[in-house]
Amino acid sequence: MSNPRRPRRRQQRAIDTRQRILDTAGALFVADSYEGTSISDLITAARTSKGAFYRHFPGGKLEVATAIMENTLTMDGLVEQRIMLQEVVDIGMILAHRISHESALQAALMLSFHSSAPETYGTPWPDWIVFNAGQLTEARRRGELKPFVDPEQQAHQIAGGWAGVVLISNTLDRHLGNVEERVSRMYRNLVTAIAVPEVLPELDLSVNRGRCLYTAFLEGAPAPDRSHGETAEEPPE
Amino acid sequence: MSNPRRPRRRQQRAIDTRQRILDTAGALFVADSYEGTSISDLITAARTSKGAFYRHFPGGKLEVATAIMENTLTMDGLVEQRIMLQEVVDIGMILAHRISHESALQAALMLSFHSSAPETYGTPWPDWIVFNAGQLTEARRRGELKPFVDPEQQAHQIAGGWAGVVLISNTLDRHLGNVEERVSRMYRNLVTAIAVPEVLPELDLSVNRGRCLYTAFLEGAPAPDRSHGETAEEPPE
Repeated sequence: MSNPRRPRRRQQRAIDTRQRILDTAGALFVADSYEGTSISDLITAARTSKGAFYRHFPGGKLEVATAIMENTLTMDGLVEQRIMLQEVVDIGMILAHRISHESALQAALMLSFHSSAPETYGTPWPDWIVFNAGQLTEARRRGELKPFVDPEQQAHQIAGGWAGVVLISNTLDRHLGNVEERVSRMYRNLVTAIAVPEVLPELDLSVNRGRCLYTAFLEGAPAPDRSHGETAEEPPE
Repeated sequence: MSNPRRPRRRQQRAIDTRQRILDTAGALFVADSYEGTSISDLITAARTSKGAFYRHFPGGKLEVATAIMENTLTMDGLVEQRIMLQEVVDIGMILAHRISHESALQAALMLSFHSSAPETYGTPWPDWIVFNAGQLTEARRRGELKPFVDPEQQAHQIAGGWAGVVLISNTLDRHLGNVEERVSRMYRNLVTAIAVPEVLPELDLSVNRGRCLYTAFLEGAPAPDRSHGETAEEPPE
């Protein structure tokens, strides 16, 4: 490549278009439901062309929903911690912060409970449960958990609690402005129930924990083409 | 009324028809979604006539959904307890038992998170939060709660946790057979976090708690025409 700037710029434009389609689809799915959103609505609202749309998503609306689902479970913003339970809290607080701002994440939550979701576009919950169960197993190895705590079962509780608290907020408040506070309270209950008392004063369970971590991640994110949903292999310390 | 048996029998038949429409609608809404279910599907599946359907539900499908919502929050099976936190657990365990068997309750849960639910057929969550907040306030008055526990906020956590745990079960297992176990575990976490330690050994948090209470209610239910969703003013002891 004699001039590396041009392909890079074109590549960036393609990434932007793809991301704009996903964000727009998220907003439309939240407002009008997945079934109620047509591809032509989506193309108009995302200010793109039919050709560009199908270049990115040859499988149509279903592929858009699948991509929204796959983008949900990212570890963006998660930083290694001395106490493993802090990481359990952190990933949930980061997602609570993001879902209050990102329509694609809101759509992913709504879509994930459709009765046809597991067979069609998938759901993020099995992966999240496996991830949290792994964190809790490591927390147990480090002596942070009370005896009899089952990592797999607690991981189910975290996924269910997180999802339900966000859904209830959305239904009752008609916005997600209180989600970080409610999810923070959920983790307070959780760690009080499962952690050994010595760990409790070491944990940061504050409402702005997710925002702080995610903002630090965005500011320190190395390359712009890695900032749209992939897992960061080297999170900033 | 010279012959009181005939109107009573007719009244019972009308109640049965109404309940059959609600149960059938629940099953169809769960399988094919609210939007995907037509009134003619519903009339055929419920083995009724168009005339009978509209006599019971002049407002059509929306009125069916509203009735399903209103039938959700019943206190059937709840019995007065010495420890108020036991009642907090009991109502959640009874509903966990019932939702694993009743399609109308499953439909209510799914419908309650539709984005248009609050404006159209309503959701049961505000009532459930008020009810649980009242129970927790009474629990605090009786000295069962740790200081700093906020009844209103904990009531939100219960509603969110209960809903999310059931939804996750449904999505991951494709059935609700494990719901009582998962909801029981949710209440274990909750009471460990919020109750004073002295209360814990006094609580029955067993998986079959809801089934036992609800079966006792059904067996002791006084009049058949009070057994389909109204609040029992005199629960069996």
